[in-house]
Amino acid sequence: MVRNHSYCSSIEVDIQEYLKKAIPIRPPVSVFEPMHYLTFAAPQSKAPTLCIAACELTSGDGSQAMAAAAALHLTHAAIYTHENLPLTDRPRPKPEVPHKFGPNVELLTADGIIPFGLELLARSMDQTQNNPDKILRVIGEITRAVGSQGIVAGLYRELQMDQPDINVGRAIDYVCKKKEGELHACGAACGAILGGGDEEEIEKLRKYGLYVGMIHGMLNGVGKNKEGLMEEKIEKLRILALKELENFDGKKVELISSLCSA
Amino acid sequence: MVRNHSYCSSIEVDIQEYLKKAIPIRPPVSVFEPMHYLTFAAPQSKAPTLCIAACELTSGDGSQAMAAAAALHLTHAAIYTHENLPLTDRPRPKPEVPHKFGPNVELLTADGIIPFGLELLARSMDQTQNNPDKILRVIGEITRAVGSQGIVAGLYRELQMDQPDINVGRAIDYVCKKKEGELHACGAACGAILGGGDEEEIEKLRKYGLYVGMIHGMLNGVGKNKEGLMEEKIEKLRILALKELENFDGKKVELISSLCSA
Repeated sequence: MVRNHSYCSSIEVDIQEYLKKAIPIRPPVSVFEPMHYLTFAAPQSKAPTLCIAACELTSGDGSQAMAAAAALHLTHAAIYTHENLPLTDRPRPKPEVPHKFGPNVELLTADGIIPFGLELLARSMDQTQNNPDKILRVIGEITRAVGSQGIVAGLYRELQMDQPDINVGRAIDYVCKKKEGELHACGAACGAILGGGDEEEIEKLRKYGLYVGMIHGMLNGVGKNKEGLMEEKIEKLRILALKELENFDGKKVELISSLCSA
Repeated sequence: MVRNHSYCSSIEVDIQEYLKKAIPIRPPVSVFEPMHYLTFAAPQSKAPTLCIAACELTSGDGSQAMAAAAALHLTHAAIYTHENLPLTDRPRPKPEVPHKFGPNVELLTADGIIPFGLELLARSMDQTQNNPDKILRVIGEITRAVGSQGIVAGLYRELQMDQPDINVGRAIDYVCKKKEGELHACGAACGAILGGGDEEEIEKLRKYGLYVGMIHGMLNGVGKNKEGLMEEKIEKLRILALKELENFDGKKVELISSLCSA
């Protein structure tokens, strides 16, 4: 358990280091200062870690998936920023989220953050051993996950959660699946693609990521403080998640499986 | 002139048709209806047209650049939506922009639109003759143009235009260069890349696009209603623009050059 924890922590440190180098505070400072700040202000997501771990599980080197992991974190940070943006029709922005910059600057900055992540990825073609087909596939995966049938669909449903005729349990399932689920599924699949996994491995890791993400959403996202509703579901998801890892190599499975118990 | 006008119009029709097929109103309707609406609510930009025209000028077939042109339009539409979003710190949203949906839905939808455009592009690998290297390069071009050193930098500066110590003339130049300029430069460069232009042709068309975009910004963007300040600049930009086309084939030059006289 200690080793598992430090495996994930060391991946997280690597990703943070990579991002710090990729987003230095440089001119125009009025642009890069908020970009740097908002990139690191978002709470960490496990999706980038999962991306590196899946790459290593499929016998790749973690560095091959670093640009993808960074793009996943940037995507997550941009969405987090927009989620907490003070809009005229958003009744209750979360009071615990500090706003160092005005809404206008936060809006724009997050608009720049997602493309920046994809740019890192597109430009990683020259620096790695991956072939362009794999990187293009990963770009397709990330853009689909963040888009209208993925995270954005989850955010829409979340907006409707207060409506009186909503089945709360089902709505939570849907939001967790689309929001955290899609991002983590995408992270794991991208890692497996870049690590050289075969189609079966990619799909198994995608499902593993989906379950891990849903658990995360139920614990920390829209399911938070609804423990009574969630406990049983989370336990089922853990069992499903671990089942997807059954055919992978023993030692590395131990490392990646720690991600579903956080 | 009539032929030039219809050349551009026929390209615009093709792009609209392509987009209509790419974004049908399908389930979840609560997501795709605003996506469809906001895609076509934005005023048309010449950047996608320029992309197709540059592809054809460099001896490519227009269809090879269609996904890129669509991604450019979607990027433009998303930015337009966010620009006109009612935020708590935005004092004067333009009264002429109608809002069919609430700010929250508009924010989210535009967040889904940019990735969707890039997804179209990433997935166009299978359907065209282009090799993945070119498409990856184009994704890098578009993400860079929209990001923190491109359009977003222009939008930042535009926010500061009301400050008392601003040199209005220089600020307009900067905003037009970064906002419309970068998008059109990117459009022309992407078309030339996909059309198989050599590096010199790509860079000439990139500059042509930059000047065309700046003219557009001075006429219709931040320079609007400041004709006295702009007239001379616009004339200079037109001369610079046409100069970039000098070494291209005669007949096709006539077609693409109409874009800088609109």
